[in-house]
Formats: sequence, C-alpha cells, structure tokens
Amino acid sequence: MTSDSAPLPPSLVPLITDEQAPPRVQAVFDDIRRTRGTDYVNHIWRALANDPAQLEMTWAQVKQVMAPGALDPLVKELLYVAISAVNNCSYCVHTHTHAARAKGMTDAMHGELLQVIALASQTNRLAVALQVPVDERYRGPATA
Amino acid sequence: MTSDSAPLPPSLVPLITDEQAPPRVQAVFDDIRRTRGTDYVNHIWRALANDPAQLEMTWAQVKQVMAPGALDPLVKELLYVAISAVNNCSYCVHTHTHAARAKGMTDAMHGELLQVIALASQTNRLAVALQVPVDERYRGPATA
Amino acid sequence: MTSDSAPLPPSLVPLITDEQAPPRVQAVFDDIRRTRGTDYVNHIWRALANDPAQLEMTWAQVKQVMAPGALDPLVKELLYVAISAVNNCSYCVHTHTHAARAKGMTDAMHGELLQVIALASQTNRLAVALQVPVDERYRGPATA
Amino acid sequence: MTSDSAPLPPSLVPLITDEQAPPRVQAVFDDIRRTRGTDYVNHIWRALANDPAQLEMTWAQVKQVMAPGALDPLVKELLYVAISAVNNCSYCVHTHTHAARAKGMTDAMHGELLQVIALASQTNRLAVALQVPVDERYRGPATA
Amino acid sequence: MTSDSAPLPPSLVPLITDEQAPPRVQAVFDDIRRTRGTDYVNHIWRALANDPAQLEMTWAQVKQVMAPGALDPLVKELLYVAISAVNNCSYCVHTHTHAARAKGMTDAMHGELLQVIALASQTNRLAVALQVPVDERYRGPATA
Amino acid sequence: MTSDSAPLPPSLVPLITDEQAPPRVQAVFDDIRRTRGTDYVNHIWRALANDPAQLEMTWAQVKQVMAPGALDPLVKELLYVAISAVNNCSYCVHTHTHAARAKGMTDAMHGELLQVIALASQTNRLAVALQVPVDERYRGPATA
Repeated sequence: MTSDSAPLPPSLVPLITDEQAPPRVQAVFDDIRRTRGTDYVNHIWRALANDPAQLEMTWAQVKQVMAPGALDPLVKELLYVAISAVNNCSYCVHTHTHAARAKGMTDAMHGELLQVIALASQTNRLAVALQVPVDERYRGPATA
Repeated sequence: MTSDSAPLPPSLVPLITDEQAPPRVQAVFDDIRRTRGTDYVNHIWRALANDPAQLEMTWAQVKQVMAPGALDPLVKELLYVAISAVNNCSYCVHTHTHAARAKGMTDAMHGELLQVIALASQTNRLAVALQVPVDERYRGPATA
Repeated sequence: MTSDSAPLPPSLVPLITDEQAPPRVQAVFDDIRRTRGTDYVNHIWRALANDPAQLEMTWAQVKQVMAPGALDPLVKELLYVAISAVNNCSYCVHTHTHAARAKGMTDAMHGELLQVIALASQTNRLAVALQVPVDERYRGPATA
Repeated sequence: MTSDSAPLPPSLVPLITDEQAPPRVQAVFDDIRRTRGTDYVNHIWRALANDPAQLEMTWAQVKQVMAPGALDPLVKELLYVAISAVNNCSYCVHTHTHAARAKGMTDAMHGELLQVIALASQTNRLAVALQVPVDERYRGPATA
Repeated sequence: MTSDSAPLPPSLVPLITDEQAPPRVQAVFDDIRRTRGTDYVNHIWRALANDPAQLEMTWAQVKQVMAPGALDPLVKELLYVAISAVNNCSYCVHTHTHAARAKGMTDAMHGELLQVIALASQTNRLAVALQVPVDERYRGPATA
Repeated sequence: MTSDSAPLPPSLVPLITDEQAPPRVQAVFDDIRRTRGTDYVNHIWRALANDPAQLEMTWAQVKQVMAPGALDPLVKELLYVAISAVNNCSYCVHTHTHAARAKGMTDAMHGELLQVIALASQTNRLAVALQVPVDERYRGPATA
C-alpha cells in the first residue's frame, strides 16, 4: 500500500502500513481519512507514525490551521506551496501543489503564484545584499 | 528625506534622493508615486536607483506581478509576507506586512497567515529530515 | 515591562503586557512563569499573545518537546541553537544561547557546538554543489 | 565499488575510485578507513578527491571536530543531522542519520530529535515573521 | 524531445514541446536557440512556457543579465552556480555547472569555486551563531 | 578598540581585545595584520578568538582559499558576497562588500553582481516550485 516509491530512495524511517499501526496511530489515520474524504493516507503521515505523539500533535495542528477561517482554504494552500518552495521541501511542493489543484487552483492562479514566488525571492535577496534599512514608517506595529 | 534610518546601519549603497536622481530614475520614482497614490518612495527603490537598469526592470516586474489578476492583490501580498519571512528578509517582512495591512489584512488574517507559516515550516523540515519519498499519485503534473 | 527594546525596531505586532492580557493569555503567561521558575516572560510570548490560540498551541508544544526525555534538556537546547543559527533567526540564537548557558553549557561545549555548525554547513553545501548521490548502503531506513 | 548509484543522477564530478587515486588521495582514504574501522569510503570523499587539497582540509576538520570532547560524539552527530536537515542537504541527512544510529541513537532519541527540529523551525519562522526584538537581558554575551 | 526524464519524477507542470508551443512561446524558444547557438531548449524553459508572460519576462532578464558587461560571462556563471548551491536548487546546480564548463571553467577553477562556497558557508553560519555586530568601519556605503 | 558597536546588540561572546589575547590568539592576529597590511582586526576574528583552535583553523582556511589561484581574488570576493547574501549573513555581506570594493569592484561590477543574485534567486525558486527534472544531458559529470 505504501510501497509505490521504487525509483526514489526510501524514507529514513519505515512507512507504517495499516497492518502495523497501533491503535493510537490507527485513530489518526482514521481521522485523516474522515476529514479528507479519501481512503488514501500520504507517506508523510506513515513516516510520522513512527512517533505517535508527533503524529497526533502534527495532525491536530494541520487540522486546526488549514480549516476555513479568516482566510479560505485555497489561500492557505497557496501559502503552503510558496513556503514549501522557499524552504526547499520537494515532498511538500509536490503534495501541496496537488492539494491546491484539488481545492480549485486554476492554471492562471498557479501562474500568478509562481510569479509572486519569483518576484519576492528576487527582491528579498536584493534587500539583503544591499542591507537596506527599514523605513521609519514601517518600523512600528502594523495595525489594521 | 531618506535619512530617517539613524539607529540602523545605513545601506551598502547610498539611498538616492530626488535631488540626485537622473531623469531615468526620476521617471520610475514618478511612476511609483502615481501607481501607489502616495508621495513616499521606499528605501529599496532609492537603493536600487544606483543601477537604473535594475531599478526599471524590478519596478516593471513588481507593477505587473502585483496587479489584480486571478489572485487578488491582498492574497499576493500575504504570499509576499510569507516568502519574505522564509527567505529571512527583515526589510521585506516589515514593508510587506505594512502593505498587507494597507490592503485590508485584518488581525484574524494576520494570525492565520502566521499559523500557516509556522505549520508549513515545521512539516517542511520534518519531510526533509525523514527524506519522505513523494507518493506516486503526487508525482505527475498537477492539473486543474 | 516589555518596553526595553529601544535601539531595535519594535515588533510588527504589539508586545502584550500583563495588564493587556485577557484571561486565556494570562493563563499561559502564568504557566510559563511556573514552569521556568522565573517572573520574566520573553518578548516572543508577548508577541504571540496577539493570537491566543497560536500562543497556547506553541507553548504546549515547547513544554512537551523541551522536557527531559531520551535526550536531556541541555542537548535539546544545543540543537535549538544550531537550528536557529541555520534558519537565521537572530532572536532565537540570542535567547536559546542564553538558555543553553542557564542549563549548563560550558565555554568548551559552546566552542564545540560552533565547530559542528561550521563544519556541517560547509560539507552540506559541498554535497549540494557536487550533487553527490546517496550511497546505496545509506538509502534504506536507518535502524537501531 | 562506487558505481552503486544507478537510479540517481550521478555526481557533477567523477567519484574517484581506489585505482584512480593519486598517493595524496590514497593517504586520506587510508586514514578514513583506519579512523572509522571500515573498508568503505563514502561518495562524498570520492567526490572531494577531485581536489586533493580540499579533501585533506575537509577530512582533517571532520576528524578534529567530530572526535570526543566536551560534547560526546553522539550529540555531535545529532547536531549534524539537525543542521543538515535545515540546510536541506539530502545526502547529508541520509549519511548522518545512519551515522547517528551507528553511534547509538535509539528510536526514542530519533523521535525527539525530529520534534526539536520541527519545533525550532516553527518558532524560528514566527520570530522572523513578527520581527520580535531581542529582550534586553539576552543581548549581552552569554556567559557560563 | 523533452521526455528524457524517466527516472526522476516529472515536473509539476507539463513540459511544453515545440508542437504544443503557441506562437508567443515559439518566439522565445527561437530566440533561446539563436542566442545560444544550439537546437536544444532546456526543461526549465519548457516548464515556464505554461505561462507565456512569465517565460518572456524571465528569458528577457536572463538574456540581459548574463550578457558580457563589467563582469565577464564566465564569472557570472560561477556566481550562478554558487547562488544555486546555497539556494539548494538541484536543477540549477546541474545546468549551470555544465554551462560554466561550456564557458571555460577548468578543473582548477571548479575546485576553487567549491572552496569558496565551503568557506563562506562556514563563516556565514559562525557570524550568525555568534551574532557578531558589524564593525563601525564597514557600516557605511561601500564606495569604490 | 573593539567597542565601536554601541547601537547594535553585542556579540554572544566577548570580542577579545589585544590585551586579553593569549599568545596563540596573538599569533593569529599578527598574521592577519601582516597578510592584510592593516592594523585593524575585524570583530569576527575577535569573536572566534574565544576558541583558539577554531580561530586558527578558520584563519588558515581563509588564507589558503582566498589567495590568488585559478580565480583571481576579486572574483573570489564577489562569490563571497553572493554566498553571504543568499545565506543571509548581514555581518558577512557588510564586510565582504567592503572587501570587494577594496579589491577593485567598480559600481558597474557591483550592479551586475546584484543583478545575478536577483536573477539566480528567482530562477532557483521557480525550478524548485515547478520541480523541473534535470535534463539528461546535464546529469553526468561536467567535464572541461
């Protein structure tokens, strides 16, 4: 079930299958399936399952943070893709780009997301390379 | 006009004042003022103005990329803040957080933005530390 | 109480004082004081307090993760310093270096910590610049 | 001997085999084997061997820094894994996680190492995204 | 033509073939071929071609920035390799190391490039881990 | 002598003055002065001097790597600036930009250096965000 990774080096920990999962892990896998409306449980959860406490803590945080709120789930997913690209997590770029598509990201939105990633990464490095001091007006707390 | 940076080390290049700006630079400063509806020109533009070609190229890209499109300008600004935080650009985090506020980011939106930054940075590092292979179903192109 | 930051630009959010703290935030501040045996509450907690849910979630995780376990608290603190340096968080390098000292880090330990940071950062970049493939024997799960 | 890397793109430099190694390189390979008590010489050393001066300098530093000292070798190895994950070096995460296992890292220690990586990466980004100023008491030198 | 990537996961967007390219994309592909004196168009351009505006903007910038100027093209290419390694872009390290070779990088130059990457990454992390303040004499603008 | 850092938080270790330097440290300071033809010893060396072994090792490497070779010292200094900007070391960007100026970097060269930093950082992130696979022809060792 989780052995579809032949051409890539396997994870540094075993990917826990349903059969190997102790009840505490099985409970999280069940909640992932219920929450996402799919039978499929990603590799990352099967890897984290080696430490049930970490699995529970991470899943609880994902469930809370990615739920609809002041920002809608698609915007959160676009942010996730951007952060994952800048943090250079190949696994995360793959899975969250697919998740963004599933939540409605169009080709045009994907294009603009990439444009902002490219632009910001460029100006970020320029501001650091020039060591530009923050303008006085942008130093205090940013209030609504 | 641009000398309000006393307590911080100054930029590694002079911040070009209006008086020092050659016509090519003045034209960009004018366009920044017009486009943004403000008289104020940020330090980054005054620093980039030391190389008029770079100033023109960067401003043209900012103007095009940050305009309304498939993503609205506030979403683009939230992405800019997230990317700047992960790229660790202090100048950019300051200025774009203020810009996001000016475009309507509420306290609740700011809170959720920070939550996604925190969550994604955490799972990004876990996936790298575990070297989790990409699931077969997330390997192909992500299509709408 | 929290206004000792004069020469540095202030945070992008207000640092919540004890007087401003709603009960939910006050409860976390109290637990921080109790757990650490000090009256002092750091800036980071006062900044996070703008979003009580985020404050609670982050503090709960810090409390659980940094407690004694298979690794002793000083080792965890050394790891925190190393990660913060590589992630380039100036605030975190400052506070966790002080925390490591408080937990018993000697001058010699600090020196060796810095040596490992320097060495690993160097070989990390070399392996990336050379795109060295993982040796077959280091590809499978690392087991005890 | 070094050609076990079929499914991954090969290194950007040839991996120097024992047969190809000039005496200066052979001397380092011999010292690696002697010091580590194994016949196996990793890919990274075979890649660095293209520049004998770089090979000697890097190996001398590894040998000195990773030796027992105020920190024990396992703690140094845990630090190496953490730094490699944050610097995003896939090769280094693989090899040093295996090395940590060989030096005695248990499942529980691995789990806690991952927890600290996840937690610190999260708070590091939050402190940057909020631009929290360093508390006055954490600004001076950290002394024992 | 672009399907030579079997052992690696394919891109998150389709790689646009010559047959699929609309005129606007074809015009950029033609200019790449003309400028570089080769029939081959790299994967990155075929991926960017999904967003013709982004393709045009990026290619225009590459063409302008990488042209001979105050720095010669080989020096620019060495800088590109160094930046790509530190930004951790595997694709870019591969392609720009090959490009540097094509522009005349010798084994000795490659070796020294790697030495500078290793050294600077090491001292960069040390200065951050120690939070060394900038010397007064290095704070003002750096002038010729 | 080393106390010119008033407005910035001081280093996390004391900056060792000439008066405090033990003979082993004094020998390195003398060699720095001799090699660079100046009486001034930077903060970084005074910080590293808290661990004489680390000071000696780092200075020996700087002296060897930055000497004239297949790449001239100005090119190495430009690489150092670029790497420091991407690694986000503010101290290093300041000092090495000044060093590059002292070695002959003109305004035009500085401008082009910044252009390459901006361009490469942009395309690096795009290649990661798109997960572009390396072209078959760029996978093997890059040879002269």
